[in-house]
Amino acid sequence: MEVEEEVKRIIDEVKDLHDSAASFISSSSQQELSLRLKASSVDSSIRRLHSTLVSNKNLDPKLLEEDLHRARCMLVDGETSSFLPSKPQGRFVRMFCGPVNVRALRKDVQLKVKEEYNRYRDKTALLFLFFPATLLILRSYYWGGCLPAFPVQLYEAWLLFLYAGLAMRENILRANGSDIRPWWLYHHYCAMAMALVSLTWEIKGQPNCVQKQRGVHLFLQWAMMQGVAMLLQNRYQRQRLYTRIALGKAKRMDVVWGETAGVDGQLWLLCPILFILQVFEAYVGLLLLRKTVTGVVNEWQVMVCGILLVVMAVGNFINTVETLMAKSRVKAKMKRSKSRAELN
Amino acid sequence: MEVEEEVKRIIDEVKDLHDSAASFISSSSQQELSLRLKASSVDSSIRRLHSTLVSNKNLDPKLLEEDLHRARCMLVDGETSSFLPSKPQGRFVRMFCGPVNVRALRKDVQLKVKEEYNRYRDKTALLFLFFPATLLILRSYYWGGCLPAFPVQLYEAWLLFLYAGLAMRENILRANGSDIRPWWLYHHYCAMAMALVSLTWEIKGQPNCVQKQRGVHLFLQWAMMQGVAMLLQNRYQRQRLYTRIALGKAKRMDVVWGETAGVDGQLWLLCPILFILQVFEAYVGLLLLRKTVTGVVNEWQVMVCGILLVVMAVGNFINTVETLMAKSRVKAKMKRSKSRAELN
Repeated sequence: MEVEEEVKRIIDEVKDLHDSAASFISSSSQQELSLRLKASSVDSSIRRLHSTLVSNKNLDPKLLEEDLHRARCMLVDGETSSFLPSKPQGRFVRMFCGPVNVRALRKDVQLKVKEEYNRYRDKTALLFLFFPATLLILRSYYWGGCLPAFPVQLYEAWLLFLYAGLAMRENILRANGSDIRPWWLYHHYCAMAMALVSLTWEIKGQPNCVQKQRGVHLFLQWAMMQGVAMLLQNRYQRQRLYTRIALGKAKRMDVVWGETAGVDGQLWLLCPILFILQVFEAYVGLLLLRKTVTGVVNEWQVMVCGILLVVMAVGNFINTVETLMAKSRVKAKMKRSKSRAELN
Repeated sequence: MEVEEEVKRIIDEVKDLHDSAASFISSSSQQELSLRLKASSVDSSIRRLHSTLVSNKNLDPKLLEEDLHRARCMLVDGETSSFLPSKPQGRFVRMFCGPVNVRALRKDVQLKVKEEYNRYRDKTALLFLFFPATLLILRSYYWGGCLPAFPVQLYEAWLLFLYAGLAMRENILRANGSDIRPWWLYHHYCAMAMALVSLTWEIKGQPNCVQKQRGVHLFLQWAMMQGVAMLLQNRYQRQRLYTRIALGKAKRMDVVWGETAGVDGQLWLLCPILFILQVFEAYVGLLLLRKTVTGVVNEWQVMVCGILLVVMAVGNFINTVETLMAKSRVKAKMKRSKSRAELN
């Protein structure tokens, strides 16, 4: 019978497929394991050699050090990067997703994740600009100077989900080898806490609402400025990524050297805006704190939001300064090695 | 010079490692692709044959159908399952995590994810029991019948994060081939919406707070019952999983046949509790709705929470009934095939 034979054939096919799938899975996980072992042993040899070079005063280590640095760049930035021991997946990811592996094996997938993260930030920045702007415009021309509770709470709920998404994505990027500073993750947790707290904070109406809503009003203005800063930051980051990809295609080992190439001009626009934002954020925070200290309001939410804003402003400031200092160090190193190369 | 040679050796090692990593990644992704193509072609042949068998009246298809069913079980439940076209990763995961792959290739990793999900549910169930119980006990013996706002809001924030975690994990389980009904995901989204809305809902205090807090009070009682039901459900689900693993080890192809083995007794305890919970949930929802209709309260939050509770109760009821009906169909099929096997 024809159908009977076909059923038999299918069963055989399934058995074959099952066997080849099982052997593929076991052999590829073995190979992966051995690559992991080799990668971490090479990584530790590089570290060991580096410290020998630094401590050994008898030889001029500069040239050797550079070679070693290039080897390390290849190891960390190339195809081998997926096999290096990873940073542990953040608590935040484990809390929401469980023990699932969010690390991509292939470099192109990792770059895709990063590209999508940039797109997400772009969308976010636009909303950061238009959502509070709409609220402020409606407040002036339609609501008669008095924000109703519902749209503000909608905005706060949006902030909560937004920062949860940013925290999750940046945790995932870190697990994929990105060098995002841990502070930015803490910043997002603080922002989530603030959104949650402000959701429970009653938005008071008439009479005299201009006075009562001063905090919310300032906060919305700060959020609009934040939108502009995010748009600029995104452009800068994206250009850096493209430079890295382009350099990576040209010559893998030079990837890290191109970090700050071609985007210096934009930093002079970005930095002042970032510092002004941080000052404004601290100002709104201190204003809220003063209100609780002088006893104008007695809600705990006002105090917590004030403290969180000040903490975020200070943390942002410290981390921006540290990033700038690290950048200038890298640039000085580049200049030194360039001039040496020209001398040779 | 000794150190110089070592540096050279390291650079060679890094280059070798880089090449073998690159070739491993490209060959394994090729193999994976070909397994995927084969798996989906076999899958579609099985479907085609099945429909031929069903439509062809000339032959007695029962025995062939059973063989085909077993082949499909092996394909779907065995090592090949990772290579079948996956359900698209839910929007919820994409929204928070971006385009990262949350699907595990190896069966044992998938089972680990499921085990961890069960542990998470256990912890959750205990908190579901103790958190509202503590609030209710403190209300009666310490707060004089009047819940203060802060602990209730803390509880609501906890609910929000809890349901976000459950929704994320169940989305991930679905992407890993679990057959969770889509309704449970929608249920979690509704519960998240309710937690968010209730955070903006002012908890009124004295005077006359027993009357004003009746909704919250009933909701906390319902949450405690929910805790008991979750504990029972978890025990039931875990026993089912262990049965599946044990049977899977004994003989892969029989896995699905063991679905309802050994846990029938517990269903008779679980089902009535689930139905009582659903009725109580709908009752709380209707009570809230009546309050808005009769004009006792005029906050939009009360109406939205009422609607969401009723929707969740109705959805839970329909899905519990459908699950029970599907179970009894599987059982009838098992009995039929058993008795035929004995006849032969």
